[in-house]
Amino acid sequence: MSDKYEFVENAVGRRVPKIVNGKAQTPFQGVAKYKPTGNRVAPPIRSCNDYPLDGNKIVPSIKDALVKAGIRDGMVISSHHHFRNGDLIMNQVFDAAAELGVKELMWFPSAAFPCHAPIIKHLDNGVIHHIEGSLNGPLGKYTSEGKMRGLAVLRSHGGRWQAVQDGEVHIDIAIIAAPTADSFGNATGDRGPSACGLLGFGLVDSLYADNVIVVTDNLVPFPCIPWQIQGQNVDSVVVLDKVGEPEKIVSGTTAITKSPDRLYIAELTAKFVRAAGIMQDGFSFQGGAGGTSLAFAIYLKEMMKAAGVKARFVRGGSTKYLVEMLEEGLTDYILDGQTFDLDGVRSMRENPGHVNTSPFTSYNWHGKGNFASMVDVVVLGATEVDVNFNANVVTHSDGQMLHGIGGWQNCLFSKCTILPIPAFRDRIPVIVDEVTTLVGPGELIDVIVTERGIAINPLRQDLLGATKGSGLPIRPIEEIKAEIDDLVGGAPEKPEFTDEPIGIVKWVDGTVIDTIFKVKPKVS
Amino acid sequence: MSDKYEFVENAVGRRVPKIVNGKAQTPFQGVAKYKPTGNRVAPPIRSCNDYPLDGNKIVPSIKDALVKAGIRDGMVISSHHHFRNGDLIMNQVFDAAAELGVKELMWFPSAAFPCHAPIIKHLDNGVIHHIEGSLNGPLGKYTSEGKMRGLAVLRSHGGRWQAVQDGEVHIDIAIIAAPTADSFGNATGDRGPSACGLLGFGLVDSLYADNVIVVTDNLVPFPCIPWQIQGQNVDSVVVLDKVGEPEKIVSGTTAITKSPDRLYIAELTAKFVRAAGIMQDGFSFQGGAGGTSLAFAIYLKEMMKAAGVKARFVRGGSTKYLVEMLEEGLTDYILDGQTFDLDGVRSMRENPGHVNTSPFTSYNWHGKGNFASMVDVVVLGATEVDVNFNANVVTHSDGQMLHGIGGWQNCLFSKCTILPIPAFRDRIPVIVDEVTTLVGPGELIDVIVTERGIAINPLRQDLLGATKGSGLPIRPIEEIKAEIDDLVGGAPEKPEFTDEPIGIVKWVDGTVIDTIFKVKPKVS
Repeated sequence: MSDKYEFVENAVGRRVPKIVNGKAQTPFQGVAKYKPTGNRVAPPIRSCNDYPLDGNKIVPSIKDALVKAGIRDGMVISSHHHFRNGDLIMNQVFDAAAELGVKELMWFPSAAFPCHAPIIKHLDNGVIHHIEGSLNGPLGKYTSEGKMRGLAVLRSHGGRWQAVQDGEVHIDIAIIAAPTADSFGNATGDRGPSACGLLGFGLVDSLYADNVIVVTDNLVPFPCIPWQIQGQNVDSVVVLDKVGEPEKIVSGTTAITKSPDRLYIAELTAKFVRAAGIMQDGFSFQGGAGGTSLAFAIYLKEMMKAAGVKARFVRGGSTKYLVEMLEEGLTDYILDGQTFDLDGVRSMRENPGHVNTSPFTSYNWHGKGNFASMVDVVVLGATEVDVNFNANVVTHSDGQMLHGIGGWQNCLFSKCTILPIPAFRDRIPVIVDEVTTLVGPGELIDVIVTERGIAINPLRQDLLGATKGSGLPIRPIEEIKAEIDDLVGGAPEKPEFTDEPIGIVKWVDGTVIDTIFKVKPKVS
Repeated sequence: MSDKYEFVENAVGRRVPKIVNGKAQTPFQGVAKYKPTGNRVAPPIRSCNDYPLDGNKIVPSIKDALVKAGIRDGMVISSHHHFRNGDLIMNQVFDAAAELGVKELMWFPSAAFPCHAPIIKHLDNGVIHHIEGSLNGPLGKYTSEGKMRGLAVLRSHGGRWQAVQDGEVHIDIAIIAAPTADSFGNATGDRGPSACGLLGFGLVDSLYADNVIVVTDNLVPFPCIPWQIQGQNVDSVVVLDKVGEPEKIVSGTTAITKSPDRLYIAELTAKFVRAAGIMQDGFSFQGGAGGTSLAFAIYLKEMMKAAGVKARFVRGGSTKYLVEMLEEGLTDYILDGQTFDLDGVRSMRENPGHVNTSPFTSYNWHGKGNFASMVDVVVLGATEVDVNFNANVVTHSDGQMLHGIGGWQNCLFSKCTILPIPAFRDRIPVIVDEVTTLVGPGELIDVIVTERGIAINPLRQDLLGATKGSGLPIRPIEEIKAEIDDLVGGAPEKPEFTDEPIGIVKWVDGTVIDTIFKVKPKVS
C-alpha cells in the first residue's frame, strides 16, 4: 500500500504525502511562512431566468433535489454539523444517492458523529469513495483501521473555509439542514422545533457550492428572519418531518467535570489568567466545551465578579455558563461559532449581544485577519503535549484517530493559549517526548496546566515574568514530565506504525503538518 | 467624436455602442433572454500573515490608506451613497489622490450627489478619467454637456452588484464611509453621530475590491456590532472627525407631495391596489421615496387598517411612514435597502423586524433569485412613459441626463408594477410616443396612474379583469395620451441629438439597453 504514496519531510520534520486523494499537497513550511498566491474561486454566474420568480424553490424530496442538482459519480457532497450527534439528514442523503445508483462520492462534512455510523455501508458499497472532515466515533475507527479508500483530510474549522474559498475543495452539492427556512431558501438555526443555534459551518458551503439544498422541518412564509443562510445562494428547498434532534446537540463534553483533579486544574488555570494580568476590564477569552474548560469559565466568572471585572467579549461554543455571564452583564458580547446546549440556542435567538459568527469571521487564515488572534486567552484540550509544547488533538497515544480538530488550531493564535490537561489518562502520561500526531506547533502554545504544576513556554518570558511571585506552582515542563513518568513507571510502549497513511492533518493555511499512519495490529 | 463609436441595434431597436470605456458590450437581448456564462470573479487570496494579529488596522489619514493600498494611475475607486447629499469623504479622497499625483482614475460610486460638485475639477484636471454610476445634479449636467472623457455607465443597484460579481468592473480600492467601526474594520451604519442606517450599497465593494478602506468618525472597541461590513474584508481603517451629515440623508424626495393632483394620483393608486385584490393579508409592497409614492403608502395604510389587513413585508427605502406601519403592527417586516430619513435609521437600529438588505438579496439578477420578483406590488416614478408602457427614469424629454436608475429597473420584476405619474410636468406631457431613453421595457410595466385616468398594460388581462366594475377611471393609454396632447396643444418639440454618446444605460443583466446621446445646442 505504501508505494502508493511518495513522502516529503516538512518544516517540522514530519513525513507527509506529496499527493493526497489525487491532489498535490504543500508541506507545512512553519507558522506564518506559507504565502498563498492567486485568487479565491467563485461559483458559476447564475441568472434569475433559471429560478422561479415567485421564489418558491420547494421540491418534494431529497432525492428530487439531488436529481435536480445533477448528482453524478465522483461529486463532492457537503454538510454542516450544527446538529452534532442529532443529525437526521445525511444518512438519508447517501441512502438517496445509493438508490440513484451514484458512486464514488466524496463526503465533505464539517464533522461527522457516531450517528453517522450507517454511512460506513456506503463507504463499503462504493457510493462514497472517502470522507474529508472530522471523523469521530465509528467512522474514525473505520478509517483508523485502513478501510477507507481515500485518506481522511483533517482540517480545522478555519482550514475548511480556507480550502473551499481557495479552491482546494470544490463542493458540487451542499446540504444545509435548517431548523427554520422559507421556500426561497433563507434559513436560520436559532428557531423552530429543531433549533440548533446557528448555521455558520454551512455558510461557506452556501457561498461556494455549485448547488445548494436547504432541508427544513419548519417552513415559514417568506421572509425567514434572520437569514443566516441567504436564499440567493440556494437552489432547492426540501421540507421533511424532522431534520435533527436538538437534544443531541448537547454533546457529552458539555457537562462540567466532577473529577477533583480536573476541577483543580480548571481553578489553577483561572488563577493563572488572573495572576498573569490577563483578566482585566475589556478582556476576552474563549473556552472549549470540555468539562475542564467549562469549569475554568465558572472559576473565572467568580474571580471576575470578585474583582469587578467585565469582559468585552467571550467566544463560544456557547453553553449556559457563557449565557449566564452575558445575562449577568459580565460580558458585552458572546461571539458564537456553535451552540453547545439549548441555553445557547435560546440566548442566540433572544439576546442581541449573542452574535453568530462563522469560520470566516473567526478562523479563516486566508482572510484579512480573523477573530482568533484578537482573543486575550484561550483554554483548549489536548490528547498529548511534548516537552517542546507541541500538541496533539486528533490521535491518542495508541495511534487511533478519534477526534476532529474543530477550531483548535485556529485558536492557537490567541494572545495566550493555555492547555489544561491531566497529567495522565488511564495511566498513560499526557506529556510525552514526541506527540503521536503534530497538530499544533509548540511556538503557539504558551502554557500547560496539570494537577502537578504549570509549565510556561520559555518563549513567553513575559508570562514567566508576570506570574513570578504569584505563588502558583510554575515549573519547567521537563520536571513535570519526569515526575509523571516516575509515577506511572516510565513512558508507555509506543504503538508500531505501518507506512500506510490513513489520514493527513492540514495546517490553517492548507499545508500538510502531519500524517496519520495506520497502526500495526498487535500480535497477541 | 462619433467615429470613436461603432453602434449596433439591440433587441428593442436602440442603437448602442459596441465598446464603452474600452470594454466590449453585449446589446440588450430582451427581458430574461441573456444567458451569462463563466464564473463569478473573486479577490486575491489573502493571508493573516500580512495583517496585524491584534486586529488594529488604523492608519493616520485617507492619504496614508491610499498609499498603503498602492494607489496608482488608472485604478478604480468605489464608494457607497448612504449619506446621499451629506457625504463628506469622497471629495477628500480625490483631493488626496490629486496630491499624490495620481491620474486617470475611474470613480465607481453607487450614486453621486450635488455635494460632489467639487469632483468636477478632478475630471477637468485628469485625476479622474470618468465616472460609472448614477450622476445627479452638477455631475449629471457636466456629463450631459459632453465634458467627461469616458461614458457614463448607468446601472441599477442590482446591476452594479452584477457588474462587480461578474467581473465587468474590477474595484481596486473601495472606500466605505462608516458611522461606526472598530479598528479591525467591522462597520455599521445604524449607530453613531453620523448614523445613516445601513451600508448595503458598499457590501459588494467590501467583498470584491482588492483593497478596502473603512473611514469612520465613531471608533468603538472591537467588536463593532452589528458588522454590516465585516473586518475580514477590510485592509485599513481611517478615523476622521466627521464622515457625513446625516441630516442631508433626507433627500428632497422624502416629503409628501402637497399637490392636489399628485395626492389624487396617489389615492387612485392605492384604490387600484385594493380593487385589484392585491391588498390582502400577508401581501407585500414597495414604494419609492418620491412624494407621490409616500402619499400612496399613507393612503394604503389607511385602507389596510380599515380592512384589517396586515402585510408580511414592505420594502424600503424606509421613511417614518413605513416605520409607523411596522411599529403599529401593519407589517411583520421592513426589508430595507436604504434609509431615507432619521426615523428609518432609528428603526433599523431598534426594531428586529426592520431588516437591512443589500443589492445582492434584493436585486442582483445574476443570483439564484432575488426579492424584487416576490413583491406583490411596487409603485415607482418615471420621467416619461410611451404608449407601449416603455418607461424612462434617467433623462427628461429635453434629453438631459439628470437621474440615476436606483433600484427602479430591478423593481420592475414585481408581480405588479405601477407608475403613478402626473399627466404633464411644466406643460410637457409625460406620456409620449417614444421615450427619450428606454430604461424599462413596457412588458414589465403593468399600470400607469395619472390624474386623467388609469391605463393597464393589455398584457395584464388579469388586472383588467380584476378591476372591471371597480368604478376606477380605467382607460386605454392612447386615449389618455390624446387628451393630454390636446390640452397642451400637441406633443412638444423634441430635442435634436448629436451622434455623440455621453452615457449608456445597462439592463439588470449587464447588457446595454440604450444610449444617451448629447443634445445639440439650441441655436437661439
